[in-house]
Amino acid sequence: MAGIPIYSSAIRPEWIDYNGHLRDAYYAVIASEATDALMDRLGLDAAYRARTAGTLYTLEMHIHFLREVKQTDTVEVGVRILGFDHKRIHAAFEITRAGTAEAAATVEMMLLHVRQEGERAASAPFPPEVSANLAQLAAAGAALPPGGPGSRRMELTAKRATP
Amino acid sequence: MAGIPIYSSAIRPEWIDYNGHLRDAYYAVIASEATDALMDRLGLDAAYRARTAGTLYTLEMHIHFLREVKQTDTVEVGVRILGFDHKRIHAAFEITRAGTAEAAATVEMMLLHVRQEGERAASAPFPPEVSANLAQLAAAGAALPPGGPGSRRMELTAKRATP
Repeated sequence: MAGIPIYSSAIRPEWIDYNGHLRDAYYAVIASEATDALMDRLGLDAAYRARTAGTLYTLEMHIHFLREVKQTDTVEVGVRILGFDHKRIHAAFEITRAGTAEAAATVEMMLLHVRQEGERAASAPFPPEVSANLAQLAAAGAALPPGGPGSRRMELTAKRATP
Repeated sequence: MAGIPIYSSAIRPEWIDYNGHLRDAYYAVIASEATDALMDRLGLDAAYRARTAGTLYTLEMHIHFLREVKQTDTVEVGVRILGFDHKRIHAAFEITRAGTAEAAATVEMMLLHVRQEGERAASAPFPPEVSANLAQLAAAGAALPPGGPGSRRMELTAKRATP
């Protein structure tokens, strides 16, 4: 798998669409659940959220759908930290069917650390230990082979690989 | 709402995350269900799929998360056809909370028409009536005011609007 292993999931029956495969949006659900696992890894877990009212908001998500996933598959998710600053994380996830080498999907996300105050949320810097964990995870990922296709401006004119 | 009204949905309780809002991935589920409604509008409905084994596969999806959505909200989805050729559709969806003017999210998708043959799927041209429907919908959308932010390459260095 490309990236640092962070999450794996069975495919729930209600995720299968009329085409007989994992519906597009449930790749996003898998990536979202992988982000929860990433938060645990970084020290932004439930205890942190309860203690500080700090959490991550997703600003953007871009998915490339590369291969079909079936009800009988188990998917594994790897992560790379492509970049981060004092309050944002640019992460790339790769979703692979267990037992196969090629990515079924690549997912990029831009995540923002916020503090929730009642109905409002304001962006807030990471605590130092989270920044240290980010630096460590980013360095570990940078040593790995490059991942699959990343976010880009979509346009019809571009030459595309079609399944 | 920006775009041509195509779908609306209540927010299901299981879509709310630990932050108390619609989880990021369920914006994708809403856009995916709006794509089903778009298929119905274009003549790519269940009867077409059963008769021809033709369907749409999603190649890419890019979401900008602009505003929080709550359990009590109803969301409305508008669509524009940004472009299409003989087998692909580049569509933009805008998700709005009913009763508000600003988009809660914008979603771009690149969709490919395929014919499923057993375990395989091969890209296939649209039938002429679907192409005609696409042309009509694209023209109707082109007359509307421009939509929200579109797909792009994510990077930390770009100046960003943060909530």
